[in-house]
Amino acid sequence: MRSAEFDVLGIGNAIVDVFARVDDDFLVSRDLTKGMMRLIDEPEGHALYAQMGPGVEISGGSAANTIAGVASFGGKAAYFGKVKADQLGEIFAHDLNAQGVRFETHRPLDGPATARSLILITPDGERTMNTFLGASNNLSPADVEEAIVARSHVTYMEGYLWDRPSAREAFKLAARLAHRAGRQTSLTLSDSFCVERHRESFLDLIRGGIDILFANEKEIAWLYQVGDFDDALQAVRHDCEIAALTRSEAGCVIVKGEEVHVVPAHPVAKVVDATGAGDLFAAGFLYGYTHGRGLADCGRLGALAAAEVISHVGARPEVSLAEHARHHGLL
Amino acid sequence: MRSAEFDVLGIGNAIVDVFARVDDDFLVSRDLTKGMMRLIDEPEGHALYAQMGPGVEISGGSAANTIAGVASFGGKAAYFGKVKADQLGEIFAHDLNAQGVRFETHRPLDGPATARSLILITPDGERTMNTFLGASNNLSPADVEEAIVARSHVTYMEGYLWDRPSAREAFKLAARLAHRAGRQTSLTLSDSFCVERHRESFLDLIRGGIDILFANEKEIAWLYQVGDFDDALQAVRHDCEIAALTRSEAGCVIVKGEEVHVVPAHPVAKVVDATGAGDLFAAGFLYGYTHGRGLADCGRLGALAAAEVISHVGARPEVSLAEHARHHGLL
Repeated sequence: MRSAEFDVLGIGNAIVDVFARVDDDFLVSRDLTKGMMRLIDEPEGHALYAQMGPGVEISGGSAANTIAGVASFGGKAAYFGKVKADQLGEIFAHDLNAQGVRFETHRPLDGPATARSLILITPDGERTMNTFLGASNNLSPADVEEAIVARSHVTYMEGYLWDRPSAREAFKLAARLAHRAGRQTSLTLSDSFCVERHRESFLDLIRGGIDILFANEKEIAWLYQVGDFDDALQAVRHDCEIAALTRSEAGCVIVKGEEVHVVPAHPVAKVVDATGAGDLFAAGFLYGYTHGRGLADCGRLGALAAAEVISHVGARPEVSLAEHARHHGLL
Repeated sequence: MRSAEFDVLGIGNAIVDVFARVDDDFLVSRDLTKGMMRLIDEPEGHALYAQMGPGVEISGGSAANTIAGVASFGGKAAYFGKVKADQLGEIFAHDLNAQGVRFETHRPLDGPATARSLILITPDGERTMNTFLGASNNLSPADVEEAIVARSHVTYMEGYLWDRPSAREAFKLAARLAHRAGRQTSLTLSDSFCVERHRESFLDLIRGGIDILFANEKEIAWLYQVGDFDDALQAVRHDCEIAALTRSEAGCVIVKGEEVHVVPAHPVAKVVDATGAGDLFAAGFLYGYTHGRGLADCGRLGALAAAEVISHVGARPEVSLAEHARHHGLL
């Protein structure tokens, strides 16, 4: 393969997260399912925001978190995603650029505001996300910069994009361009409700040529409609080249044809906020993968990055993951 | 005194803080004085922001932090301060309202953006603030709601307001209205550079009738141009009814005429971010004061709140200070 200018290109919903602490009753009384991501419209967003306590704003977005993580490991990374040219859009762009990520998707002056996710953190560290997609809805094939796709080793996309037709088209175009350039594609299933919404088309997509699939045990079980993790594992090994399946504190399983690696979770003193665990697992994995590491090492790098991000509020790394990995003898 | 609807009314620069971690070299190479607050204009703000790493956005503003703290103790609190009707202004207003603070200062649709402070946190936990005042500059006497001042036990104002003529007029008007209604006034000197800019007029103001003065040892020394803390203490006891002087890890000294109380600092495992220490000290003190506590207890409540806020990033309390104080036997 020709050497790539970017290790990983991420494509996803560009979102600023608003974190607030709530008790379990707050979720129950509003019929919110703990741990899930729910799409809300603007009026619902305003109503929920008005009921939430004081917040902390941190750039988020699933694939953007992954890309920030890749850059924090020292990888070369790029991102496509749509924000408005408003204050939150500026913040989002700053935070990626400041991490060294190439992000130049056009930011419109008009139209819906930059996307926000109202993330409710319960005392157990779990997060429940309520996302107003706003400007991120308008990501379209016009935002797919062909030259960047062609120069990226892996193009990584989040399943959340599948919720909107124009973003779905952007996704498909990027995947086609990547393969045409002899590059690889990667997908995260994002969320089990997202899998429920798009099960058939996700299966088509994966079978049609996703090289590296990320999913947690719930998502992969819903995708294959099986109750047992091992059944899901057997199914997925025939459908894509590499699957990295995460199981929270039980670690992860990486499967590539006949090859199977079981990697334990990296220890964490206290789960402060689970937001970004899967995103940062993918960051560590993809950094390792694009730097020639074996699959078990990729899993260990993923586990390390996931452990860092759940030890504090926010879905972006608070330390240099490169230094953190060196400190733990993984780089 | 007639019973007050609000325990504390705060007036100050309404600011959203942007926190980023930097090393000491970042400050040195830009000639930034560690621990200080510096006013910057918009182009300088953009230039510094572009050089900063990824940020975390949390509502701030000195007096607003104090007021949020008073409310977190269970006190009734109100606030006057100017934000624009933009995204950061919405966030600022939400975060005060969500804390139970009455905040209804008019938010203009036009004019400068909501104020931002770029706060650089060094590994020692110190913070260095670079503030673009934006909309907060436009606080004026028209924003002083007379009925609210008259119904507030203590009207608390930050020295930072003194930097702008219209805010200074708002400050003076509020102080006059408070005294006319038989209420009390309080001032924080805010920052030693701020004291340097306004030494003479601060002295006039204090001697003209500030009931409760807050200052740290550096600020009070600059105010009286003395090198020794005890000399400053002797000077201030003649100039205002109550002075609460903070000395970081050495605790605080509270002086009222012949009465002097020395209160130790509340222990803190690690100073993560010193932002808001003085603001939250004032919160605990004023909560105690408006609830009939003795001055030593007021100091202890202040020390408790300061310790909480420096144990995490951001200048707003992360826990209920009422519960926290009960847990420590102070309420």
